Amino acid sequence: MPDILGHNYIGGARSATGSVTLHSHDATTGEALPYAFIQATPEEVDAAAHAAAAAYPTFRNLPATRRAEFLEAIAAQLDALGADFVALVTRETALPGARIQGERARTSGQMRLFAQVLRRGDFYAARIDHALPERQPLPRVDLRQYRIGVGPVAVFGASNFPLAFSTAGGDTAAALAAGCPVVFKAHSGHMATAAFVADAILRAAEQTDMPKGVFNMIYGAGVGEALVKHPAIQAVGFTGSLKGGRALCDMAAARPQPIPVFAEMSSINPVLVLPEALRVRGEHIARELVASVVQGCGQFCTNPGLVIGIHSPEFTAFTALLATLMSEQPAQTMLNVGTLRSYERGVSALLDHPHVTRLAGQTQHGNQAQPQVFKAAASVLLKGDPLLQEEVFGPATVIVEVADKAELQRVLNSLHGQLTATLIGEAQDLQAHSDLLVLLEQKVGRVLFNGYPTGVEVCDAMVHGGPYPATSDARGTSVGSLAIERFLRPVCYQNCPDALLPDALKNANPLGIARLVDGRMTH
Amino acid sequence: MPDILGHNYIGGARSATGSVTLHSHDATTGEALPYAFIQATPEEVDAAAHAAAAAYPTFRNLPATRRAEFLEAIAAQLDALGADFVALVTRETALPGARIQGERARTSGQMRLFAQVLRRGDFYAARIDHALPERQPLPRVDLRQYRIGVGPVAVFGASNFPLAFSTAGGDTAAALAAGCPVVFKAHSGHMATAAFVADAILRAAEQTDMPKGVFNMIYGAGVGEALVKHPAIQAVGFTGSLKGGRALCDMAAARPQPIPVFAEMSSINPVLVLPEALRVRGEHIARELVASVVQGCGQFCTNPGLVIGIHSPEFTAFTALLATLMSEQPAQTMLNVGTLRSYERGVSALLDHPHVTRLAGQTQHGNQAQPQVFKAAASVLLKGDPLLQEEVFGPATVIVEVADKAELQRVLNSLHGQLTATLIGEAQDLQAHSDLLVLLEQKVGRVLFNGYPTGVEVCDAMVHGGPYPATSDARGTSVGSLAIERFLRPVCYQNCPDALLPDALKNANPLGIARLVDGRMTH
Repeated sequence: MPDILGHNYIGGARSATGSVTLHSHDATTGEALPYAFIQATPEEVDAAAHAAAAAYPTFRNLPATRRAEFLEAIAAQLDALGADFVALVTRETALPGARIQGERARTSGQMRLFAQVLRRGDFYAARIDHALPERQPLPRVDLRQYRIGVGPVAVFGASNFPLAFSTAGGDTAAALAAGCPVVFKAHSGHMATAAFVADAILRAAEQTDMPKGVFNMIYGAGVGEALVKHPAIQAVGFTGSLKGGRALCDMAAARPQPIPVFAEMSSINPVLVLPEALRVRGEHIARELVASVVQGCGQFCTNPGLVIGIHSPEFTAFTALLATLMSEQPAQTMLNVGTLRSYERGVSALLDHPHVTRLAGQTQHGNQAQPQVFKAAASVLLKGDPLLQEEVFGPATVIVEVADKAELQRVLNSLHGQLTATLIGEAQDLQAHSDLLVLLEQKVGRVLFNGYPTGVEVCDAMVHGGPYPATSDARGTSVGSLAIERFLRPVCYQNCPDALLPDALKNANPLGIARLVDGRMTH
Repeated sequence: MPDILGHNYIGGARSATGSVTLHSHDATTGEALPYAFIQATPEEVDAAAHAAAAAYPTFRNLPATRRAEFLEAIAAQLDALGADFVALVTRETALPGARIQGERARTSGQMRLFAQVLRRGDFYAARIDHALPERQPLPRVDLRQYRIGVGPVAVFGASNFPLAFSTAGGDTAAALAAGCPVVFKAHSGHMATAAFVADAILRAAEQTDMPKGVFNMIYGAGVGEALVKHPAIQAVGFTGSLKGGRALCDMAAARPQPIPVFAEMSSINPVLVLPEALRVRGEHIARELVASVVQGCGQFCTNPGLVIGIHSPEFTAFTALLATLMSEQPAQTMLNVGTLRSYERGVSALLDHPHVTRLAGQTQHGNQAQPQVFKAAASVLLKGDPLLQEEVFGPATVIVEVADKAELQRVLNSLHGQLTATLIGEAQDLQAHSDLLVLLEQKVGRVLFNGYPTGVEVCDAMVHGGPYPATSDARGTSVGSLAIERFLRPVCYQNCPDALLPDALKNANPLGIARLVDGRMTH
């Protein structure tokens, strides 16, 4: 067994002054793993936030290339983790080894993407308006603007991505890239995984000579509240349930100094299957869609939870095939007991609804999730029934048949904010339904064509965000390089002597970055 | 007298179904002006928000150049307002005619700056990551990102800038530029001014064929709450008191769908007067500083409310001179009775504090504001006394003398978030105190050198923002072209056929805008 201390990570050291011990579990058997994690005391939460605050002035002022080196060192440390690590993550989450390997590559790739962003320098968003001493009626002063990290960031890991959305995940990478030290609250579902990754981050911090306190990690139930309320914390990243995310938002808004919370929460990710596509390749679409719904046991934020089609013999056949295919899918082990119970509650609620019918799926029993297909009347959406608006996290989807295009428009209009919406259509379908795009843009963060939303590429152009309740702030993304913007704020210098300006704003442009100078983009 | 109807502006029409009538006042005499404004009913607030929502899909999808034409038409309409307009604003606010003329030019200039931003196209922040079909282990899809307006925006006008921060002010300009229709809540202090300006906006909307509902305006006390809580409203802009701004933030955060509030609230704008500058030009600095403190009767968000110096004979002499000069300043009429009462309360609180001494200033009496200078012990700041942390809106400033540079650092550290901080120093002063910059950057939105914060240039590089309580969200600015970003959110297209993409993202780049393509900035 790997050696895991189970102490909190505070200011580059380990701390375990508390007396509450926690355990994570083998996700398949349910047995407790032989590691004790010591819940952080209120004093330790305070110390972790203070350690991050102490690191902030130094860390944010490092040249961006130094922070890039840190991120790259984290990536290398993650890539170097051995088979014992993969085996442990698999045990804690029931996710297969290949998925863990892939997710680890995504996580280190994410760190490297942010390193590129730092080297590119456009995150500074540097702007210079030179003085105009002769301007009438008043001269213009010299004004220069760039962006700095907002301060220490609290990050809450997700249950479903123990690597890519956790300890060294996208929120941590974005915050560190922005120059914001992190206090990470380890998810109770994979605390041993978190320890492995935190060790990797601390090795990288030491290698690249980062300030102590650049990364801190605490364990425990309830410690998150104290963390979000801590005056040193200036922003929050969260991936999880609507209930959990909203609670953090409410706490953050009620602080003496309110702070922004970027919570990625609940999305049912509607997929619209258009008539001509159904005619040409209905069977193929059904197979792909089922694969997307059950992928990772349905435990993706972008799982297609709603399939919408227009009444036709083809859609009827497609629905029947989808049901048949889904009934052939095996039950799967979920990430943990909490996730399974939540899935069971969601399935029950659908079964109990008078206007929802189960088309395929076994009764939930034992400790595995049964794939499910339901069909709901369009009226359920049109009446604003909350049942279909919140995601059922797991391998389930709901089919809605609409009478015609007008009803389709109304149904889409009735949806809350989403991470994604998908159009499956032939060229003529898309042309005929192009007017839906204006509506979909208003509802979601990403519009897909002839694909499935479960793949979320990590790149510059990705948006993994969307209007509430998909996220708490539609102006951010938690995947892709734009995620850094959530943790930056602008600062302006007026008539500052060149020698005192940050490098990003000096006359000679020593960083060689793109800058908006007197209204023109320059390099 | 100009002809003013006093009805609410809803969806391009006028509406006055309510029975509560309101009056604005001659700010100098206190007498009610002969115009009746009809308070919006709850149904009218709802109708105004719905009108904005109805305009949103059309308005946000107009080519940016069309929105630029609209803003330019507003600018032209504002510039064309006649002497009767200037006389009326002067009557409602007691601001001198020259100030109104200047503020009007600022307001139309602001509209034209946003028009430039729209023509430049960088607000789209377009990003393209081309498909990589050969990539291993998985191909990359085609991903493209741009930004759209968030939806209808509620704007609350400021008392102190009846034009530049009001009906057609910076928040309105930024929201309209972003493609967000506006519902403007007219400030009770200058409702007639607001009507004049709203008429100008509607004429411009008609001229440029904008959708009805692109701009709406409502009158009334208490209507703001219903507006912020309205489900159609997606963001809020506000300039005013900490109490008022925080109340809006709390309402917005408690909505079923929380929305962002950009409130510019309270700042004491510390000015640090450094030793060598005092020696070389202490008298000159004292004169400039007094002029800045009393400018516009101290009714600027960036009024220097705190002057800090290091103990020395020169600082003692400077303090004495500042007091003498201030005592020579005449009393001035404030914007309205509410502002005067608030100033009186602030001055009283300072007078009552055991560690604060009045150095100059007459007892407040009558309906004019007496200029005041106080001196507070550094301990008042160091102990976190709230008295010195909140602005006293008016022609008053507080001097704090620190023992040495170490105490200066501690005093600065004790300050809450500010819009500005100013360093007055010779080259050798600035060099000797350059380590303060890291700290000041963390406290403020704008750092000035050898100037006074009361001038806020409207340009690309300006930041009129800062950490709480200066604003509710340090990531925004309410002056300058960056203000548009508060009202934009990113949307991503995955594998979208070129013909269906928005122009900003089409392969041929028909708008000719700067785009980040595969990690490189292109034109």
